[in-house]
Amino acid sequence: MKAAFYTGQRTFQLRDIARPDPAADEVEVRVAFNGICGTDLHAYHGAMDGRIGVSRILGHEMSGRIARLGANVTGLAEGQPVVIRPLNSCGACPACTRGLSHICHNLSFLGLDTDGALQEYWSVPAHAVHTLPDGVSLEHAALTEPVAVACHDVRRGRVQPDEDVLIIGGGPIGLLIAMVARAAGANVTLSEVNPARIAIARGLGFATLDPRETDVAAAVMQATGTKGADVVFEVSGTAAGTALMTDAAAARGRIVMVAIHTTRPPVDLFRFFWRELELIGARVYEPQDFDQAIALIASGGIDARTMITDIQPLEDVGRAFAALDDSASGQAMKSLIRVGAPD
Amino acid sequence: MKAAFYTGQRTFQLRDIARPDPAADEVEVRVAFNGICGTDLHAYHGAMDGRIGVSRILGHEMSGRIARLGANVTGLAEGQPVVIRPLNSCGACPACTRGLSHICHNLSFLGLDTDGALQEYWSVPAHAVHTLPDGVSLEHAALTEPVAVACHDVRRGRVQPDEDVLIIGGGPIGLLIAMVARAAGANVTLSEVNPARIAIARGLGFATLDPRETDVAAAVMQATGTKGADVVFEVSGTAAGTALMTDAAAARGRIVMVAIHTTRPPVDLFRFFWRELELIGARVYEPQDFDQAIALIASGGIDARTMITDIQPLEDVGRAFAALDDSASGQAMKSLIRVGAPD
Ligand SMILES: [Zn+2]
Ligand SMILES: [Zn+2]
Ligand SMILES: [Zn+2]
Ligand SMILES: [Zn+2]
Repeated sequence: MKAAFYTGQRTFQLRDIARPDPAADEVEVRVAFNGICGTDLHAYHGAMDGRIGVSRILGHEMSGRIARLGANVTGLAEGQPVVIRPLNSCGACPACTRGLSHICHNLSFLGLDTDGALQEYWSVPAHAVHTLPDGVSLEHAALTEPVAVACHDVRRGRVQPDEDVLIIGGGPIGLLIAMVARAAGANVTLSEVNPARIAIARGLGFATLDPRETDVAAAVMQATGTKGADVVFEVSGTAAGTALMTDAAAARGRIVMVAIHTTRPPVDLFRFFWRELELIGARVYEPQDFDQAIALIASGGIDARTMITDIQPLEDVGRAFAALDDSASGQAMKSLIRVGAPD
Repeated sequence: MKAAFYTGQRTFQLRDIARPDPAADEVEVRVAFNGICGTDLHAYHGAMDGRIGVSRILGHEMSGRIARLGANVTGLAEGQPVVIRPLNSCGACPACTRGLSHICHNLSFLGLDTDGALQEYWSVPAHAVHTLPDGVSLEHAALTEPVAVACHDVRRGRVQPDEDVLIIGGGPIGLLIAMVARAAGANVTLSEVNPARIAIARGLGFATLDPRETDVAAAVMQATGTKGADVVFEVSGTAAGTALMTDAAAARGRIVMVAIHTTRPPVDLFRFFWRELELIGARVYEPQDFDQAIALIASGGIDARTMITDIQPLEDVGRAFAALDDSASGQAMKSLIRVGAPD
């Protein structure tokens, strides 16, 4: 079978490899589509070579059909359309033993710490499988993993109907959070500087504010009768976003930390005290987030057509990564790789 | 009647003033004891002159007995022992209309924004009155306000029985949080550098760690089987405390921001994401925190004898402030002023 190997510093090799049998507790999935995410791009740049090596099959945002079941697997059937929640936890650490296996201290991320979905057949632990309802296209279902991230973020933020939500950063995850928060009944505003992303957000009917033109915190305060945003999602990973998140929040406002801040920016801790703000970290997803993501994709609560801006065959994986990498315009949202026939 | 006026830059004047009648919705309290807190010391230094002026009766941590009732006041009686929750809110702002009147956008703090309890008779809004059960000494009851702060902090941190709690900073508020958290069933450890404060905490049976001698985060991880602290209280207001709060927290650990950080220290936002930490701001108290504080003082859950390290008469208010100010040793916890006869 064909498999795309990341082979160091912005290179891929397509190789023909043997198709192994699934282990007893595994399910083998015939991969249909696989999305490329920011972490994959990070790996592509060589920034994760120490963790993943230079002979690694990437891919963790996928859809497909069950090809074969391991000997111990029950409750699933060949041919079923599925997506994979790409986490494997240790079961023994203090997070796992307290019901927080998604942030296991020894978490293995499938498609980074193990080989992933950029191959025709992918064997994964059976516990990672989520089946799809009838009528969901496998193309759209390839968005499940990033939508589940957004579902987790919105759930961690405890977003309620009619609440005012500010999302700082309108990239793919920011836009998915906007859709999930709107599906939860919230009034959503996006703060974004990139004109292409602003246009996409407006096309989806979201209010937008451009911090280069507008004092976003003041505009949010004015729009909410001096209350501020009930929930703020910091998705930008910038110092400006870190300042805005506290400035724009209502009394007892919840700020969800979605971005990966690699430096330690200054934070207005006085404002946390004064307004009794909450900062809530959110990482990956739990099984219920995958269930919700699948339901939102099935119901049309996620605009998959707008999100999927490119589809390339497995042979062109290198070109797809390069194109996404060069895309400074901000027009690219999600690029999919068509790994096998979608059926 | 006698009243102690703060008259600018570390000075007080004792004056004889007229005793006004309470307004229709007010209660006049004959003040017994009044504690001096950090905010009072801050005012004493002149740092709050712009807000409070230089002819202000300070005092908000008090106990006393009802002397007279305003015309509209019901449900209270002359002679009842009481404490005062020294907050007055506007009732109209976005915080008030959402049930968060204790962090009203236009909050008036009695004893700072209005004259306070360092006078023989103090008229306050009737809604601020909490009556005391039989058998509580008015001396101990003067601790109610700071204990209510600690109750609010512990409640905001959602401390559960058997949870591991780390308190960064062992001054009066840190020590009261330790007592309240212990009363909630938590395993409490205090991080503190001052030898006198370490000795007081140990004398009360608390585990202590000295960051000058020990890697506190590593020690907490080791003591909890690599889990970390379920709840961390940042009471130090230091950059070191801000670093420790994230390093020592368990997965999904709650960090309560008690300290008033006047600068914006660097914060490890990556750790918030990675471990799904929560930062929870906590300011003053709500009525239920006063109720809990009174109950804890009545039951002995608060060691009032250890907390009250000095009592001086109203005539010596200037000396009491000066002594507290000079007390770099850390041995002083709470100094009370005896305003009137305790009965
Ligand atoms: Zn991803
Ligand atoms: Zn684990
Ligand atoms: Zn105080
Ligand atoms: Zn108000």
